[in-house]
Amino acid sequence: MRQTLSIVKIGGNIIEDSVALSLFLEHFASLEGYKILVHGGGKKASEVLNKLGIAPKMVNGRRITDQETLDVVIMVYAGLVNKEIVARLQALNCNALGMSGVDADTIQAQKRPVQEIDYGFAGDITSVNSEKMHQILQLGLTPVFCALTHDGKGQLLNTNADTIASEIAIGLSTDFHTVLYYCFELPGVLEDVNDPNSIIAKIDHTMYQKLVDKGSIAKGMLPKMHNAFASLKNGVQEVRIGNLGLFQKENKNYTTLVG
Amino acid sequence: MRQTLSIVKIGGNIIEDSVALSLFLEHFASLEGYKILVHGGGKKASEVLNKLGIAPKMVNGRRITDQETLDVVIMVYAGLVNKEIVARLQALNCNALGMSGVDADTIQAQKRPVQEIDYGFAGDITSVNSEKMHQILQLGLTPVFCALTHDGKGQLLNTNADTIASEIAIGLSTDFHTVLYYCFELPGVLEDVNDPNSIIAKIDHTMYQKLVDKGSIAKGMLPKMHNAFASLKNGVQEVRIGNLGLFQKENKNYTTLVG
Repeated sequence: MRQTLSIVKIGGNIIEDSVALSLFLEHFASLEGYKILVHGGGKKASEVLNKLGIAPKMVNGRRITDQETLDVVIMVYAGLVNKEIVARLQALNCNALGMSGVDADTIQAQKRPVQEIDYGFAGDITSVNSEKMHQILQLGLTPVFCALTHDGKGQLLNTNADTIASEIAIGLSTDFHTVLYYCFELPGVLEDVNDPNSIIAKIDHTMYQKLVDKGSIAKGMLPKMHNAFASLKNGVQEVRIGNLGLFQKENKNYTTLVG
Repeated sequence: MRQTLSIVKIGGNIIEDSVALSLFLEHFASLEGYKILVHGGGKKASEVLNKLGIAPKMVNGRRITDQETLDVVIMVYAGLVNKEIVARLQALNCNALGMSGVDADTIQAQKRPVQEIDYGFAGDITSVNSEKMHQILQLGLTPVFCALTHDGKGQLLNTNADTIASEIAIGLSTDFHTVLYYCFELPGVLEDVNDPNSIIAKIDHTMYQKLVDKGSIAKGMLPKMHNAFASLKNGVQEVRIGNLGLFQKENKNYTTLVG
């Protein structure tokens, strides 16, 4: 029987809230078996950009990563946020190893091709080095990935953290029974976005299509769900979406996605 | 026979000069055998502090690391500088892994005790986890350490990069034949600091004491030499001090320190 590997993505709202982050990290540290944490930088990157007087570049509501923005993203994601999380996990006796996709050449990406919009130094993942990640896990280490990859030619690339989590989960699903967790501020996928008690306990692909067709999935949830079902098609066993309660054994309030 | 491990510390002047850094990284990438790179952040941390309007806190010419300074140091050392070096090494087919002492719990330190001066979040190294470093090296990875450690209780600490290099070299000297390199802007220890041709080829402990007594070692070189001789007393085989020429096989212009 294959061993279980938990890949956990935490959202920006948890990173920004010191109390929520502490609670999350306690849960995460006590999670048994092999595990990997993936994070972005939340609003801290925007804060530092503001302080440095660098105006955010947005096109159609999406951030453009130019050189000075990339430098700040690298400082905040790989520096400030990553090392704070790793230091707190060490204090909880979880032997964490802060990484980005460039470290140990774990995640390569290509600069997003310019079509209508030039997104700048944004990366679309091309390969995950699952062998090297497996070796690192076997040393008893818990990788903590920030949302950066590289192109193999010396260029770092800003990459969506949800996608990093699902691509890692897919890459390692041949070696492990992989469970992917999206942990954020809501308790799961909701029937009614205004009613936190309307959590849908289980969604399969057919139901997902119906929900999409009905237009009842919240806009922010769509890419997460899209990633999740793509990973379920590609070997990931299970995806769970919820808030901090995701890791409490007695809690059943979250959404499970199955292929 | 034990295998050789090269521990290389690069100085701030090389980090700040993109051409010198490229040249250095080419030499480093082609260095055979196990190797570890150690770097600080040079003047980049001061630049970012300036841009953020954070005044440098100095007492008796030494930087005090308060909380906001520490945050910037973490961003610049572990983020910007570390990831740029790792990305460039990956492009040179050197499988680098960016780290700080908190990662994989490799280097613990204690906050420097307050005596006459409170240095803030400055760390004095208490232990090096040589077993974990050895395991990481055996995966074919090249650790790239920035000048940060942790106290095991969740606190990151700013730590002198020269000391990190010598403590790593000492810690791994039971497993490896360790050679420690201090690579900076001068071609070696000079008889006459104004004459770059006055390199002293070899210095042993007796000669070192004489040079110290004569007052002929440049002030900036003293802590480097002190660290070097401490590491030679504690198992390190050899220390070499020089500029980029250190790694060119035909070049003999550098200073070798022996115990």
